[in-house]
Amino acid sequence: MAFPFSAIVGQDEMKRALLISAVDPRIGGVMVFGDRGTGKSTAARALSALLPPMLAIAGCRYNCAPEEADRCPDQCGSRKTAKVPVPFVDLPLGATEDRVLGALDLERALGRGEKAFEPGLLARAHRGYLYIDEINLLEDHLVDLLLDVAASGENLVEREGLSVRHPARFVLIGSGNPEEGELRPQLLDRFGLSVEVKTPQDIEQRIEIMRRCDAQERDAAAFAADWADADAKIVKRIARGKKALPTVGMPDSTLQDAASLCIAVGADGLRGELTLMRAARAYAALEGAKSAERKHLRAIAPMALRHRLRRDVLDETGSTARIDRALTELFG
Amino acid sequence: MAFPFSAIVGQDEMKRALLISAVDPRIGGVMVFGDRGTGKSTAARALSALLPPMLAIAGCRYNCAPEEADRCPDQCGSRKTAKVPVPFVDLPLGATEDRVLGALDLERALGRGEKAFEPGLLARAHRGYLYIDEINLLEDHLVDLLLDVAASGENLVEREGLSVRHPARFVLIGSGNPEEGELRPQLLDRFGLSVEVKTPQDIEQRIEIMRRCDAQERDAAAFAADWADADAKIVKRIARGKKALPTVGMPDSTLQDAASLCIAVGADGLRGELTLMRAARAYAALEGAKSAERKHLRAIAPMALRHRLRRDVLDETGSTARIDRALTELFG
Amino acid sequence: MAFPFSAIVGQDEMKRALLISAVDPRIGGVMVFGDRGTGKSTAARALSALLPPMLAIAGCRYNCAPEEADRCPDQCGSRKTAKVPVPFVDLPLGATEDRVLGALDLERALGRGEKAFEPGLLARAHRGYLYIDEINLLEDHLVDLLLDVAASGENLVEREGLSVRHPARFVLIGSGNPEEGELRPQLLDRFGLSVEVKTPQDIEQRIEIMRRCDAQERDAAAFAADWADADAKIVKRIARGKKALPTVGMPDSTLQDAASLCIAVGADGLRGELTLMRAARAYAALEGAKSAERKHLRAIAPMALRHRLRRDVLDETGSTARIDRALTELFG
Amino acid sequence: MAFPFSAIVGQDEMKRALLISAVDPRIGGVMVFGDRGTGKSTAARALSALLPPMLAIAGCRYNCAPEEADRCPDQCGSRKTAKVPVPFVDLPLGATEDRVLGALDLERALGRGEKAFEPGLLARAHRGYLYIDEINLLEDHLVDLLLDVAASGENLVEREGLSVRHPARFVLIGSGNPEEGELRPQLLDRFGLSVEVKTPQDIEQRIEIMRRCDAQERDAAAFAADWADADAKIVKRIARGKKALPTVGMPDSTLQDAASLCIAVGADGLRGELTLMRAARAYAALEGAKSAERKHLRAIAPMALRHRLRRDVLDETGSTARIDRALTELFG
Amino acid sequence: MAFPFSAIVGQDEMKRALLISAVDPRIGGVMVFGDRGTGKSTAARALSALLPPMLAIAGCRYNCAPEEADRCPDQCGSRKTAKVPVPFVDLPLGATEDRVLGALDLERALGRGEKAFEPGLLARAHRGYLYIDEINLLEDHLVDLLLDVAASGENLVEREGLSVRHPARFVLIGSGNPEEGELRPQLLDRFGLSVEVKTPQDIEQRIEIMRRCDAQERDAAAFAADWADADAKIVKRIARGKKALPTVGMPDSTLQDAASLCIAVGADGLRGELTLMRAARAYAALEGAKSAERKHLRAIAPMALRHRLRRDVLDETGSTARIDRALTELFG
Amino acid sequence: MAFPFSAIVGQDEMKRALLISAVDPRIGGVMVFGDRGTGKSTAARALSALLPPMLAIAGCRYNCAPEEADRCPDQCGSRKTAKVPVPFVDLPLGATEDRVLGALDLERALGRGEKAFEPGLLARAHRGYLYIDEINLLEDHLVDLLLDVAASGENLVEREGLSVRHPARFVLIGSGNPEEGELRPQLLDRFGLSVEVKTPQDIEQRIEIMRRCDAQERDAAAFAADWADADAKIVKRIARGKKALPTVGMPDSTLQDAASLCIAVGADGLRGELTLMRAARAYAALEGAKSAERKHLRAIAPMALRHRLRRDVLDETGSTARIDRALTELFG
Repeated sequence: MAFPFSAIVGQDEMKRALLISAVDPRIGGVMVFGDRGTGKSTAARALSALLPPMLAIAGCRYNCAPEEADRCPDQCGSRKTAKVPVPFVDLPLGATEDRVLGALDLERALGRGEKAFEPGLLARAHRGYLYIDEINLLEDHLVDLLLDVAASGENLVEREGLSVRHPARFVLIGSGNPEEGELRPQLLDRFGLSVEVKTPQDIEQRIEIMRRCDAQERDAAAFAADWADADAKIVKRIARGKKALPTVGMPDSTLQDAASLCIAVGADGLRGELTLMRAARAYAALEGAKSAERKHLRAIAPMALRHRLRRDVLDETGSTARIDRALTELFG
Repeated sequence: MAFPFSAIVGQDEMKRALLISAVDPRIGGVMVFGDRGTGKSTAARALSALLPPMLAIAGCRYNCAPEEADRCPDQCGSRKTAKVPVPFVDLPLGATEDRVLGALDLERALGRGEKAFEPGLLARAHRGYLYIDEINLLEDHLVDLLLDVAASGENLVEREGLSVRHPARFVLIGSGNPEEGELRPQLLDRFGLSVEVKTPQDIEQRIEIMRRCDAQERDAAAFAADWADADAKIVKRIARGKKALPTVGMPDSTLQDAASLCIAVGADGLRGELTLMRAARAYAALEGAKSAERKHLRAIAPMALRHRLRRDVLDETGSTARIDRALTELFG
Repeated sequence: MAFPFSAIVGQDEMKRALLISAVDPRIGGVMVFGDRGTGKSTAARALSALLPPMLAIAGCRYNCAPEEADRCPDQCGSRKTAKVPVPFVDLPLGATEDRVLGALDLERALGRGEKAFEPGLLARAHRGYLYIDEINLLEDHLVDLLLDVAASGENLVEREGLSVRHPARFVLIGSGNPEEGELRPQLLDRFGLSVEVKTPQDIEQRIEIMRRCDAQERDAAAFAADWADADAKIVKRIARGKKALPTVGMPDSTLQDAASLCIAVGADGLRGELTLMRAARAYAALEGAKSAERKHLRAIAPMALRHRLRRDVLDETGSTARIDRALTELFG
Repeated sequence: MAFPFSAIVGQDEMKRALLISAVDPRIGGVMVFGDRGTGKSTAARALSALLPPMLAIAGCRYNCAPEEADRCPDQCGSRKTAKVPVPFVDLPLGATEDRVLGALDLERALGRGEKAFEPGLLARAHRGYLYIDEINLLEDHLVDLLLDVAASGENLVEREGLSVRHPARFVLIGSGNPEEGELRPQLLDRFGLSVEVKTPQDIEQRIEIMRRCDAQERDAAAFAADWADADAKIVKRIARGKKALPTVGMPDSTLQDAASLCIAVGADGLRGELTLMRAARAYAALEGAKSAERKHLRAIAPMALRHRLRRDVLDETGSTARIDRALTELFG
Repeated sequence: MAFPFSAIVGQDEMKRALLISAVDPRIGGVMVFGDRGTGKSTAARALSALLPPMLAIAGCRYNCAPEEADRCPDQCGSRKTAKVPVPFVDLPLGATEDRVLGALDLERALGRGEKAFEPGLLARAHRGYLYIDEINLLEDHLVDLLLDVAASGENLVEREGLSVRHPARFVLIGSGNPEEGELRPQLLDRFGLSVEVKTPQDIEQRIEIMRRCDAQERDAAAFAADWADADAKIVKRIARGKKALPTVGMPDSTLQDAASLCIAVGADGLRGELTLMRAARAYAALEGAKSAERKHLRAIAPMALRHRLRRDVLDETGSTARIDRALTELFG
Repeated sequence: MAFPFSAIVGQDEMKRALLISAVDPRIGGVMVFGDRGTGKSTAARALSALLPPMLAIAGCRYNCAPEEADRCPDQCGSRKTAKVPVPFVDLPLGATEDRVLGALDLERALGRGEKAFEPGLLARAHRGYLYIDEINLLEDHLVDLLLDVAASGENLVEREGLSVRHPARFVLIGSGNPEEGELRPQLLDRFGLSVEVKTPQDIEQRIEIMRRCDAQERDAAAFAADWADADAKIVKRIARGKKALPTVGMPDSTLQDAASLCIAVGADGLRGELTLMRAARAYAALEGAKSAERKHLRAIAPMALRHRLRRDVLDETGSTARIDRALTELFG
């Protein structure tokens, strides 16, 4: 039984990033940097458990939504629909490329001489979450494949004479400790958002965490009941945000702010400002605003830009501090 | 025939850690650091041999307890029960991932064209002990897999088109010599407890060890009989502790002590204080106390925190000494 | 739905190189150096989507043009023709040599004991585009194979007892960031053209890019309609250039300019001036000129030579600057 | 035809270690350090050839002794017994883990679809000798496996779905030149005894060796006959020692000597004194003494401890010299 | 359609080496050092295309000449003969040892259980040319195999239980850029001749090259016709040289010159003077001389010795310059 | 057709070593150090071609001599005998362990499900020569295997469930250039003899070599006839030596000389003096002497010891010079 999302103490930036990606999954994955033992996977798992079940074709191996069933490799369009939980797939360490992408079904190949496709973890994560702990330990080319699929929303397998294409839209959540080796900048850049999680230094907060863990360990069901109302409010907020998203305005002044900020912090390429635009819009929707304003941009700027900054040899300041400084200099 | 647990000379901290993990296996594995030839595996094996047989489904390949038989992949629920020894599995060097996790049963795959699962060592260790000598020589990703399973109590195999999930709750005991290469901090952090074992420097103690080995080598059965009463007392103490565990109190003052101590020694993340909380509770139960107090916390603090400290460049003091110093400074 | 080619803001040199290679694909592939997130693949994909459908043998696994059907390994000559889109193949990271070149069809080999060939991505890219992102991460020998095929227009597979030869004429487009490791000079030299793409520094241009992305994300069909006329003009320009190419003159003065320029910048070998000759001719055709003059040579010199210069230890100036300087010194 | 054990010139320490291990094989393997070309394997092979044939189940693939036939994987208990030579197995360089431990019998697996076990070299060495030349060139994990089996007297194979357990009690003799790379201390520590063999520097001894080789090369049978009496005496001495072993006394004063010596030379762990205890007892038995006294301990101390000493940075003296010095300081 | 041999501008030494090897292929392969893009493969391919078709057993997989058909593994002796082009085999990068040497025919092995041999590229190159671009990138052992076969004129395959021997006489032409890693001296030494190819520095020559490429690209057939007469003269010259070869004299004075020269430049071994002897003889034959004189030796000395010189630490002069200097000092 | 042994110019030490090993093959292999292109393999091949055919079981895959046919794995004892040439096997570079040692016959295993042995190159070399060019490029473990077999005269294969033992007595001849990486001292030590071959510096000798090569290339049969008498004399000398060998005396004074010499040059182990003893005896037999005297020892000392000397940091003199110096100091 997952820990209730609303019972998580602190970790405000991570929770905000998860909510934004729930409102607009096209923003791209969330990279979580941080100390070990700070509950990174707990929060991601909690969000997924919080979301209401989704409508899917019953038993479809690709998690097809009814409206995309006609493009399903299994041609599942004629089957019934069912409510299923939002998938949360935890990529096991050592999972092979075959298992992630899907591969030739050896049983049928050997037994019946047929070349059939066996879907992988990407099919199972469709329309949900794919969590990768210590993503910096994964081979670069696998990370790259995952980001390719996450970006295109489609998994195209070209192997062993197979050519299968199926929808694979999911929010990729990676966690890693920068002290243990980094992702290449090219890979980091492809994550939509990034957040930093630290061990809380406030003693009261730490005692509160122990108290809640203790309570949950003693009686998980009672603990979940205590937090059910708070969780329900969050569910409503996400639903309202998703609905409002297409109508949220995007004034030129906000685009100008985005471009000025990217130039000021020296982000390479254009992914920085495009992400600022999308995240500000989603955050405005989540907050119930009519249009994405400077205050929304400001709230999401660190998580949209932090992982896109070049190292500046003359400026030892960390990425977050450099973004904060630029925000103050530009917008006061 | 195993060496009697109570006949082990010295090694008090290791014996205490093993007893605590017997009372509450959820605390996580025990990492044993120490010189070669100090009887590390002897103690672990002795504890396992000491425990009374457990009730299991007869012949189940997954060691199912009667109450979990309905979730068994072999659907063993309708079979009879039997008393079986608490398993003690010694991971052989060079054991492959297949053999540890379980794998496709090649015989049935080739012979009958069926995709059946052959359980691995994790299934065999269920409800008992998994001992890994020189764990630092194991590949990191295998250690990680083992810790994942030990933490979740469940083995989920996603390979070669198989998808099997079975319970795998065991106490992981790893031993290693820090001089021969270390585990990554992330892996160490996931062990619940750690202890240090040293060659005894007291000459009388060493002679006593030789005497007992000599006696055991000459007549193992007579030697076991000599220590049977002492062993029986330990069995009772564990049983009483297990029963008392849910009712042991956890006052806020102890939680405050735990948080203060973790901040003082600079442990990353929150696993430090959560382990302090759990180990103090189990130790209090073992000692027959009503509630976990500072003295219990103090007794288990080194084994709960020793392996979670960062190296401090300005402080060459070892981990144990730093914890002891913090205990004295905080609690007198 | 691809982004309209004409809606791409800036990137003039890349667009010019793509148009030249559309007019005369024999010039060889295009290597794109540049920052991440600058829309390199967007432009290549857009050009391919822009081109009118081509006539091919219906269902041929080798994309045969009607006039080459008699040399098709599948002997597709007797089949009907059909209009098919110009292929754009995006080489997936981790694609194996088998999948790229084609390989033994295992299904038929195992099932029927026949040694049949299963065409690879090179067959699929025939008569279109093969795009390789981060080509510097590909193994050298695979890049070499691709360049061999691109140069000869033919894929000859000699493996596993197979010996298959099929036409494979395509424009190879590679992208890479020189900061992440370079291609060997020998490989670079075999690309016909190379361009540099940078993050635009003009704030108005950046806002315009965001505006267009925003518009396309909101309603891709409406956005495409807005740019249909501009795209149609480009299509016409390419068609006119292709037709005029054989009649464009090549005066000795232009050849002399080409040789002088190559000697001045110190390009090894003769590929430099041969590419200058071919690219100047294609560019003159694209511009509607009767003959390739110095001004055409000048316009394409950086993209024809930039990747063929040796590093000059005494001259830290970049390749582009050295070519520009030589152009000024020689031609004023 | 093996060289007669008694005809070996010099090499007293090695011969003594071999005799001790013949009296009590539980002491563990013998590691021989030394120059190449000094007849290390000749001595081991000679001892094995010297021993009288042993009683075994006729044709059993596991070399079962009659009293253990009921635990044989082949259930050989009902078969006849026969006298067979004491096995001497020379591990060939490049022997695979499969061949050493035993493995799936591929012939039966492929031919009849049965999963049968094919015993390896460990089964063949059971009750005899396993000789490994240049053991330092073997992979560590294979050495470790061999030492595990040698220590437990049992080979447990857990591979490819097989789970076979058979007795494998043998004396492991390894040879190596410390100049060519060393075994890890953890592996060395697991050998019971170690000896050093050097090229003799006495010219008469060297001429004598040549003379004996010359004689043996000219007429091996005649040479063997010349030394038959001397060899027979050694056989009797071993037999008497084996019989006397259980009754040899072990006074506390000898245990005290053992512990003092280990502390003085700084051996890690307790294997040092346990080996001293066992080797002194076996040597006393070989010498016909009633009880293991200081003089026996002294005679075997270098071979029991030499390979267990830590390098002492401040003391460049070799291991043997340090042990000799400690013996003199402690016992005069 | 190949570029006409006589239309190649410059490259005199390479053309001379190719003609000498055409007159006497026993001299061994030709190694071509030089810049990229200088038409190395163009020249080799042109020579092969120039030669008149040869008489072979029709359809023989081993290119058997009629007089060697009785030794053919396919026993092709009873078949008809046919004129076939002189083979020119371009070793593809990544070609496996199997494909080069020939291997077990898997189709027949799996399908019919027969162990048949499938000839490789060496069989196809028999009696012609084997061209290896960037030979320094090939694995040393493959180069060695190729040189072994080229030297013995016979391919002996000992693999997978096959033992096949077939004639494989070809001229091996390797090209490589010394800046990209060198062949081991032992491999270089086994090439008969070596030449250096440089980018021409004369501007008129470079313009002429562009003109000819331009002409050939516009109308390859017309271009070939323009050069047909010049090519025919070269064909005659080779034919006359081959015929005269056995009667060309080899005076002692020339042998003395060869030995003196090798001693002067310090070539290891005797391959230097033996190659000088053979190449001088072939060149004399090509030039129509009755006997190999000093002038012939002089003309071929650089290509026979250049790749056999040791690096002289005290003499930074290049190999060619050192040979030229020795020629001048010795012969004026 | 091989070059006649007696027509080889110079190379006296190598020829002597080959003759000695022909008289007594038990001395062990011959290692040839030296420059490339000095005819090392020519001499070995010439000696093998020179020897009279040997009597063998006709068609036996193991080259069985009639007197050992009863131990043949193929039980060839009942077959007829035939005269066959003395085998000369040239180990091809890249030969696999399977091909060298022999392996499971896959054809029979797959086709008939039988586990049959297919003999390797060692079986083919039995009773003849095994030549390994550039032996320093072979993997150490393969060299070791070859030396093991050469020393024991028997090939024991323990692989893939096979256990085959067949005689494999051959003279191993290895060649290598010490500049290209050395064999490990342990491997070198196991060669019986070693010789150094250099490029001749005498110009007349070099001209003579060219003349003979020229003559042999022009008419190999006539050349062989010219040298037939000289070759026949050598054949007789070997035959006489083999016959005399058992009766050649070995006085103590010679043994004393051997030991003194080994001590003086500091050879490790006893292989040095044992080889001196054997080689002196064989050389005395070859020279027709009754007993091995100091002059015989002296003649073979460099080739018996050269490769067994330790590097002496304080004495930069080469091995050969050190041996010569010791010979002079000891024996005048």
